[in-house]
Amino acid sequence: MTKILLAFFLLLSLSLQATDTLSSWNEGKNKTNIINYVQSVTDKNSSDFIPMKDRIAVFDNDGTLWSEQPVYFQFFFAIDRIKALASTHPEWKNTQPFKAVLEGDMKTVIASGKEGLLKLIMATHTGMSDEEFDAIVIDWIKTAKHPTKKVLYSELVFQPMLELLDYMRANGFKTFIVSGGGIDFMRPWASEVYGIPSNQIIGSKIEVKYEDKNIVRIPKVRFIDDKEGKPVGIHYHIGKRPVAAFGNSDGDFAMMEYTEANKKYKTLQLYVHHTDEEREWAYDRKSHIGSLNKGLDYGNEHNWTMVDMKKDWKIIYPFELKNKKEGSK
Amino acid sequence: MTKILLAFFLLLSLSLQATDTLSSWNEGKNKTNIINYVQSVTDKNSSDFIPMKDRIAVFDNDGTLWSEQPVYFQFFFAIDRIKALASTHPEWKNTQPFKAVLEGDMKTVIASGKEGLLKLIMATHTGMSDEEFDAIVIDWIKTAKHPTKKVLYSELVFQPMLELLDYMRANGFKTFIVSGGGIDFMRPWASEVYGIPSNQIIGSKIEVKYEDKNIVRIPKVRFIDDKEGKPVGIHYHIGKRPVAAFGNSDGDFAMMEYTEANKKYKTLQLYVHHTDEEREWAYDRKSHIGSLNKGLDYGNEHNWTMVDMKKDWKIIYPFELKNKKEGSK
Repeated sequence: MTKILLAFFLLLSLSLQATDTLSSWNEGKNKTNIINYVQSVTDKNSSDFIPMKDRIAVFDNDGTLWSEQPVYFQFFFAIDRIKALASTHPEWKNTQPFKAVLEGDMKTVIASGKEGLLKLIMATHTGMSDEEFDAIVIDWIKTAKHPTKKVLYSELVFQPMLELLDYMRANGFKTFIVSGGGIDFMRPWASEVYGIPSNQIIGSKIEVKYEDKNIVRIPKVRFIDDKEGKPVGIHYHIGKRPVAAFGNSDGDFAMMEYTEANKKYKTLQLYVHHTDEEREWAYDRKSHIGSLNKGLDYGNEHNWTMVDMKKDWKIIYPFELKNKKEGSK
Repeated sequence: MTKILLAFFLLLSLSLQATDTLSSWNEGKNKTNIINYVQSVTDKNSSDFIPMKDRIAVFDNDGTLWSEQPVYFQFFFAIDRIKALASTHPEWKNTQPFKAVLEGDMKTVIASGKEGLLKLIMATHTGMSDEEFDAIVIDWIKTAKHPTKKVLYSELVFQPMLELLDYMRANGFKTFIVSGGGIDFMRPWASEVYGIPSNQIIGSKIEVKYEDKNIVRIPKVRFIDDKEGKPVGIHYHIGKRPVAAFGNSDGDFAMMEYTEANKKYKTLQLYVHHTDEEREWAYDRKSHIGSLNKGLDYGNEHNWTMVDMKKDWKIIYPFELKNKKEGSK
């Protein structure tokens, strides 16, 4: 009797699992690619089997796990901080690019270029301890809303990618974020939202020093985790070549090429192609952010998994799932 | 019947667990300190409870998890590599400090100071891909023997500390190595020996670049993970303040002080004091390696757990356990 019951529950759990796998993904070549890859490398009897310790999966963040338009969300954070700090910085009224930010003149802000952007980042991201900065970021992510989508930024993560993260982990993969965004901007909230521990989140770094029992953030760039910087960040933080890489832009190309060149194991490369103007945004070769040009050609030629957001994803954001359920009541 | 069997196995596993806890540690204040700490912070009903995601434990390596005398083992690795590479570097016969290494003249090697040491490190640790370097280290750790102990270097890890690592992990702690030693020198073997994944091993770094789909090691120091560098390394790699720190020298002091200053949680600081001239080595305040001076006073004043190797540890190395078992047959 007990054995029969056990078998019953086992079957039930297996069938639930099958139904739940990547449920926000439409059936088709790309979903099949992912599942075939995971099944083959986790099958002990397959020549493609990868031991668990080497199942390293790396995910870009901006544009891959959440949206990134009209500008990187970290830039909105900097803008909001400039506004919040303006009363203690009267000089900003007459100093660019701060003046432009306070006047909402985004054209001038953007025209200030890299140098201007760096000034805004340093004024808002440094000069405090790491723990004070964490608290500022957490407060922002819990309250600030996207200008056109009118929801919290953390609600603009991609439901199909959350399912993919879960699916990889359920199959013994260790999931890492490898982002051009700030490592300390992501860690306070991304752990919870993506289920990835802070020590598996890699990003660009500003300089810090140890002072009076605290880590203090100082206004200098230490490391840019983008393009050729991504394999370097992976080397230092992970210490081994990944087997699966997920990105959306040419900034991820080096990381994906580095993964593809893994001589020991079968690999998976997946690009999220932003093709959905209606539900998200549509952009690729000529976008001012997250441009996908070289990677689009190379990925197609090399049989990478090229996700067509419009075609492949049933829903984009988790709140659609909630809305759907409520609508069907 | 099934319930009775289940209860029986549960009791059996509990009793095994109790017997196995830190079995190479002698009973006494220090063993009690460790167990009391772990029990209090993992007890959901205790005001000291720490959620699992914040149970971060950091361990120094040289002198804390394995021996470090008469010189850091990584230095022996460099020496062995110089000898192995000598035939392809005829110029070394007439260039210091290489000449001295090849002639076994350690006095001159040591007299060459930091600059000389750096030359030896760069000549042996750079100029190849990371994967080539991994293979070199693995080959060495599997074959090279300690000059006086006459066993593999990886056999000179401390059995009581291996048990402590296991014990912490069994109680939901995430264990990290935070060492002044080279991150890429430790990762290829330390994962297996200590049960710590490569991405949880932090150390000093030489510069790398991404080139032709590979990570290439270049002769420049990037980061020294020692003294005030340890909290900095912890910040970048872990992203949160630890709750437990384990060291043996003043080089670990900043890391332990940083841990002690955790305002959110109860913490544990443990120093391994090398007091056993017979079974290992005895040294502290004036040692040329792993000097413990400031930390010895501070730790005693602050009620840190000051492990007296001679008194607290039943055995030092795992092979003693094996010898013991064989002897009792």
